[in-house]
Amino acid sequence: MARPRNDNFLRALLREPVDYTPVWLMRQAGRYLPEYCETRRRAGNFLNLCKSPSMACEVTLQPLARYSLDAAILFSDILTVPDAMGLGLYFAEGEGPKFERPLREEWEIRDLEAPDPNVHLRYVMDAVVEIRRALDNSVPLIGFSGSPFTLACYMVEGGGSDDFRTVKTMLYNRPDLLHRILEVNTTAVTDYLNAQIESGAQAVQIFDTWGGSLSAAAYQEFSLAYMEKIVAGLKKTHDGERIPCIVFTKGGGQWLESIAAIGCDAIGLDWTTDIGEARRRVGDKVALQGNMDPVALFASPEAIAKEGRRIVDSFGGGTGHVFNLGHGISQFTPPDHVTALVDAVHERSRRS
Amino acid sequence: MARPRNDNFLRALLREPVDYTPVWLMRQAGRYLPEYCETRRRAGNFLNLCKSPSMACEVTLQPLARYSLDAAILFSDILTVPDAMGLGLYFAEGEGPKFERPLREEWEIRDLEAPDPNVHLRYVMDAVVEIRRALDNSVPLIGFSGSPFTLACYMVEGGGSDDFRTVKTMLYNRPDLLHRILEVNTTAVTDYLNAQIESGAQAVQIFDTWGGSLSAAAYQEFSLAYMEKIVAGLKKTHDGERIPCIVFTKGGGQWLESIAAIGCDAIGLDWTTDIGEARRRVGDKVALQGNMDPVALFASPEAIAKEGRRIVDSFGGGTGHVFNLGHGISQFTPPDHVTALVDAVHERSRRS
Repeated sequence: MARPRNDNFLRALLREPVDYTPVWLMRQAGRYLPEYCETRRRAGNFLNLCKSPSMACEVTLQPLARYSLDAAILFSDILTVPDAMGLGLYFAEGEGPKFERPLREEWEIRDLEAPDPNVHLRYVMDAVVEIRRALDNSVPLIGFSGSPFTLACYMVEGGGSDDFRTVKTMLYNRPDLLHRILEVNTTAVTDYLNAQIESGAQAVQIFDTWGGSLSAAAYQEFSLAYMEKIVAGLKKTHDGERIPCIVFTKGGGQWLESIAAIGCDAIGLDWTTDIGEARRRVGDKVALQGNMDPVALFASPEAIAKEGRRIVDSFGGGTGHVFNLGHGISQFTPPDHVTALVDAVHERSRRS
Repeated sequence: MARPRNDNFLRALLREPVDYTPVWLMRQAGRYLPEYCETRRRAGNFLNLCKSPSMACEVTLQPLARYSLDAAILFSDILTVPDAMGLGLYFAEGEGPKFERPLREEWEIRDLEAPDPNVHLRYVMDAVVEIRRALDNSVPLIGFSGSPFTLACYMVEGGGSDDFRTVKTMLYNRPDLLHRILEVNTTAVTDYLNAQIESGAQAVQIFDTWGGSLSAAAYQEFSLAYMEKIVAGLKKTHDGERIPCIVFTKGGGQWLESIAAIGCDAIGLDWTTDIGEARRRVGDKVALQGNMDPVALFASPEAIAKEGRRIVDSFGGGTGHVFNLGHGISQFTPPDHVTALVDAVHERSRRS
């Protein structure tokens, strides 16, 4: 299996020379695109969309048809794994994800088991295969999962939370129970990402959306330590190609040195970190991905292009930079504003 | 005017020797206390409570009656300043603060003026005088204000926001307009804090609640630069005593070195920063305040005491540490849990 025709994304992650700084956007297949909303309407709801390989493939490709993006990311949800564990994922309109059976009792936690991804998450693997076929080796496909701690937040809270009071109370009162959940999640995520790699994902990202809500000490013990185990357990190559791994802890800018030490190939940065400063801190240990404030996409195309160029310049040239937002793109983003960003980053960074 | 009988708080801020690590809690006079809810009920609403010097004094003292706290903080709201500018602060039940007349038009921004605190915020100064009289020199009184950028967020958005889309769009599209608002806010906050000092506040804190939502570059330009001007304009002494100044940027852990350089006496830390690591980074330039996760107060008293001791130990002894939470105390906190924290910190740090 050869690399994609446009492999700048993979080269940047592996710190090999690039033609220009590659760009993709977290949540690039999403509600800001009218064509996405149309497919979602057809699907009936978000979960049907995730669970239909052909519709997941369709929406994965939509942003690539509009913009000169350098990677596709599997369309799915981070909570498919706990759903496959039997917690009963559902989406209440306007309320975000929820679980019918959150983990509250000690026996439920003792009984928790990692699902077989090729059985219980077969629809995800089918989507990966279908997307790879549709991409026809044009750009790489990114697979992903939520981090063990981020999954645990939803599994214990039963949904989103302002303060994660339930899971943090468990952390302080019964760390043994939280560690048990995190152990199972670590096995589950490792198996899930390896199955995605075997199905055709050419890079993987771990989304640690809520690790940054922890104290520095708790982050090391309850989030980073488990991501380190996952990275150690991931297939490093498939079909003769290296499979790079990106770790993104939102709010993790204070902990870059310790994230860089867990063996990942790249760190995702949110927009609060100066990317040039981050590069000086991690040296050539890892590549960096990021990190424009998604809200900057509400500014004028000229102001967006200026901010994109500022970040490219702050990184400072050479390889090792994948341009992205510092968090998922807002559903209210004007779609044509994205063009201004992608073009500005490509133009500023293109080697003459 | 002599120092208070218990001046450990002031001594820690000025890095003079202390008997033990002093403790106060952000939002210590708040809804988690039944006696506070009772006074608020009597006041009719939150704004009446802020605007009544005698009731503001009453609730300021309530947590000191329950716990061995080492400082009182003026009961007020960070949005009294824009209210005094004529924006019309109100609190919609269950929705947080809002302004009747947010800043949207260029002419409104050009017309904005700093209020005279001794006229338009007289009720705050009266509360300071009344609280000082009631404290009778037992512990110091902290005055406070929101930061210019944090005030601007509410003034432009018209209330709280998930993403600060309106104010950030102004930042990228019309930085000149946002700078104009920030200039006026800087004058207003400087005058307001100096009036509090002249009325009897013995230390002041600038709450930069939303500076941490900015990119590193935007934080320097739109938040920190203005806090630096305020610090330079504050009265350094009153009645022969030094008036220390604390700067608290929530989410500012990546920027401690530059915050320490603006001339403040102490930096407030949220709970994501390791306080020992922060001390190594800022050296003996400033004292540090913080930084337990407020959600840890939902754990058992034993677990709370353990977490408090861990933070005291992480700071590592000597003076220069004011213990606090990393953010305001939650309204759902069981009141007796606070006792466990205050006692544990005092006991662990007491010099034998």
